[in-house]
Formats: sequence, structure tokens, C-alpha cells
Amino acid sequence: MISILIIGNGNVAHHLQKAFKKINTLSVMQIGSRNLNKIPFADITIIAVSDNAISEVSKKITNPFVVHTAGNFDLKSLQNNTRKGVFYMLQSFSKATDVNFSQIPFCLEAENNEDYLVLESLAKTLGNKIYKIDSKQRKLVHVSAVFVNNFTNHLYKISRDICSHNNIPFEILFPLIAETARKIEVITPEQAQTGPAVRNDTKTISNHLELLSAQHQEIYSILTKSIQENTHSQKTLN
Amino acid sequence: MISILIIGNGNVAHHLQKAFKKINTLSVMQIGSRNLNKIPFADITIIAVSDNAISEVSKKITNPFVVHTAGNFDLKSLQNNTRKGVFYMLQSFSKATDVNFSQIPFCLEAENNEDYLVLESLAKTLGNKIYKIDSKQRKLVHVSAVFVNNFTNHLYKISRDICSHNNIPFEILFPLIAETARKIEVITPEQAQTGPAVRNDTKTISNHLELLSAQHQEIYSILTKSIQENTHSQKTLN
Repeated sequence: MISILIIGNGNVAHHLQKAFKKINTLSVMQIGSRNLNKIPFADITIIAVSDNAISEVSKKITNPFVVHTAGNFDLKSLQNNTRKGVFYMLQSFSKATDVNFSQIPFCLEAENNEDYLVLESLAKTLGNKIYKIDSKQRKLVHVSAVFVNNFTNHLYKISRDICSHNNIPFEILFPLIAETARKIEVITPEQAQTGPAVRNDTKTISNHLELLSAQHQEIYSILTKSIQENTHSQKTLN
Repeated sequence: MISILIIGNGNVAHHLQKAFKKINTLSVMQIGSRNLNKIPFADITIIAVSDNAISEVSKKITNPFVVHTAGNFDLKSLQNNTRKGVFYMLQSFSKATDVNFSQIPFCLEAENNEDYLVLESLAKTLGNKIYKIDSKQRKLVHVSAVFVNNFTNHLYKISRDICSHNNIPFEILFPLIAETARKIEVITPEQAQTGPAVRNDTKTISNHLELLSAQHQEIYSILTKSIQENTHSQKTLN
């Protein structure tokens, strides 16, 4: 029986303790981050608090193995004097929605191979997409996630605004959104790129700009330019 | 038996004639757009050529009902002297990939209700997502599609570049990409928005900017600003 202590009250802490509780070989406790005057012993202590609280929390822990769950936080910045690791799950968690851990990539890091294997076996109790990712790579995974999740979602929002201002049901775009996401699992984004920017169809581009608000024009222009620069540099290379 | 003539050799023409050929109640012909000295008669003539050729092609047609398949082209810009319409399918077609028409939204437009019903029954032979969309709306659907397809795909490309330059398998992002696309069918993009921009987590934002190339910094900054302006204006409204 491996004992797990989860520190935190947020979405990650919530879903993680719920999932671990179903595993027979684990015993799980959860405490809030304001409740650290008496920290229970555990084989693995998981700090799942906001990024700027991780350091302070880790200072107070004397348990043998302490890991955090943040994308953008160095392993070395943990302040405990015992073993350190990272147990980062690459998905956006919200309390209302159930989490299917079998689909979530686990990005694991430890100071040595033995500790890595401990984290790997812990991750394997929940899922099977397991990646050895160091602190520098993890930060880059995190910024990549901002592009494919936060920014992509904002582009959906802009489209939804355009539609709703013009009595067009946003659902009309659902099949295209789904197909766009599905396609890059089969071909690369370069191969999947279509549209006026990559065709350099300047007439359509200027028609589109006329339809947009100033703020959306700026986004349209910069992304069009970026697609074209990329296409151009590719052509130069080939 | 309704006779259909498709003019064009591109992806839309290709997939459309292939699909119509399977329908018992339709007879289908296809000709290239450079072969217009002798145009066969058909009940419905579908011009599926590049945008800047539609006008010229339509001039030469005396058939009773002529429609085009372009997102960004006015019904009124068709130059035939007979009935006019639009049969626009909102999906990105590529010759290599099969098309599932049951999932494709048909955006239909005609000059009167009778003609609209003709197009509707034609679309119903292939699918069931059918929308009455006028020329102005269709242009806005088209520009919205650029945001959720062309631009989103480019954000995928940027993420893939970041990953491949740092020995991170791009597939690590597939579950997040799929979940991001799936989520907005259940909640609005506003509700789904997470990340440092909407949290105004300036420390993470500046960490991210340090990791990026100048070109990617520009895109990161402008989309972060747009998310924040939007969040701010929403808060002011509520």
C-alpha cells in the first residue's frame, strides 16, 4: 500500500484524489494548503496549489518525496529538503466536468531513475499516456498548450461573436472545428493548411478585413502574415 | 429524375459528383471549366470553380438554374440570365480524404422560396445539416471559418514547431486539442476560457514570452491582449 497526500483544494487536487481513491493499492489523504501546521506522513506528497504558493508550501514538508503538478514551475524550485519530482497532467480541469484520466498525458520528472519509476507506476494506476519531460521541456509544453487551448478557444470565441451578431447559429461551425482538430492527428498542420492566406488570395483577404472590427482585423492580419511567412520560408527551404 | 451538371475539376467538384452519382433520383454530368463551348443541358448547373472564374463561367450558361459553391461570392454576381442560387458546403475538402456529407453543413441561398426548396431537396439527398444563409451571412460564415480552421490550424503548427525543436512529441497535445474542440459544443468559448491571459497571471505570461521567438511573441501578445480586453469588457457589462 502506497500512501499519497494531496495538498490543495483546486480542480487538480479534487479530480486527482477522486481518481486515486478508486485504486486499491493506494491510500489517499487530502488537506488544504492553509492547513499545514500538522502535515500527515505519506510516501508521495503531491502539491496541487497555485504556482506562486508551491515554494512556500514545499518548505514546510518533511515527507520523503514531494512532487508538484504545475506546468510552468521548475523541479529545482521545490524547497523541501527531501526527494523532488513533478507530476504534471496536460489537460484543462474544471470542477463541473468529469475527467477521463485514460486520455490525459502525464508529464513526469524526477531527480533520478528510481524516483521516476515510482511516479510512472503511480501514473499507470490512472492512465497510459506517460512522458518523461524535463523542466525546460515542460515549460515549452505549457506554452504550446496555451496556443492550442487558450488561443484556439479565443478564436472560437471570435467566430461565435461574428456569428451571433449576424443571426448565424454558431453550431454551423462545429463540424469544421471538429474536423480541423481531428485532421492534425493524421497529417501535419503544414499539410492541412488551406485558405486565403496560404493561397495568397489577396482579394478574399481584403474582403474579409472589410467585414471585421478593428480588433479582429489586427488578429486576422497578424495570423495571415505569419501563415504567409511560414509558407514562404518553407518554399525557400525546399 | 433531376439532371445535374457540375462545372469544375477541383476538390469540391470531384467529391460532389462522386456523392451525387450514388443517388438514384439524380443524373450527373461533370465538365471542366475550359470546356464551355458546348454546355450540356441540366436542371441544376453547379459551378464549382475558383472564385475569380465564377463570373466568366456563369456568363456562358443558358441552363435554367445556375448555382455556385463559393463562400465569399455574392449570389447577385452570377452573370447568367436565368435563375440563380448558392450551394455552399462548409468544410475543407481535399482530394485525398473521403468526405462524409452527412456531417457537412449546407448553406443554401436562392432568389425565391421555390428555388430554395429545390436546393434544399438536393442537399437532403446527401446530408441533413441545412441552413438558409444569405450572401452577407455567408461571407461572415466564411471569415469565421478562417478563424476556426485556417488560423486554428496555424496555432497547431506553431505548437508543433515548438515541440519538435525541443524533442517533445507533438502527439502529447492531441488530447488537449481534441478536448478544446469538443468542449465548445457543450459550453460557450467564454465559459471554456482558461489560462494565464484570462487569469491575468502576468508572471506566467512573461515567462512564456521569454521562451518564444519574436514572431511567436507577437502572436502570443496580441491574442493575450484580445482575451484580456474581452474579459474586461464582459466584466464591465455584468
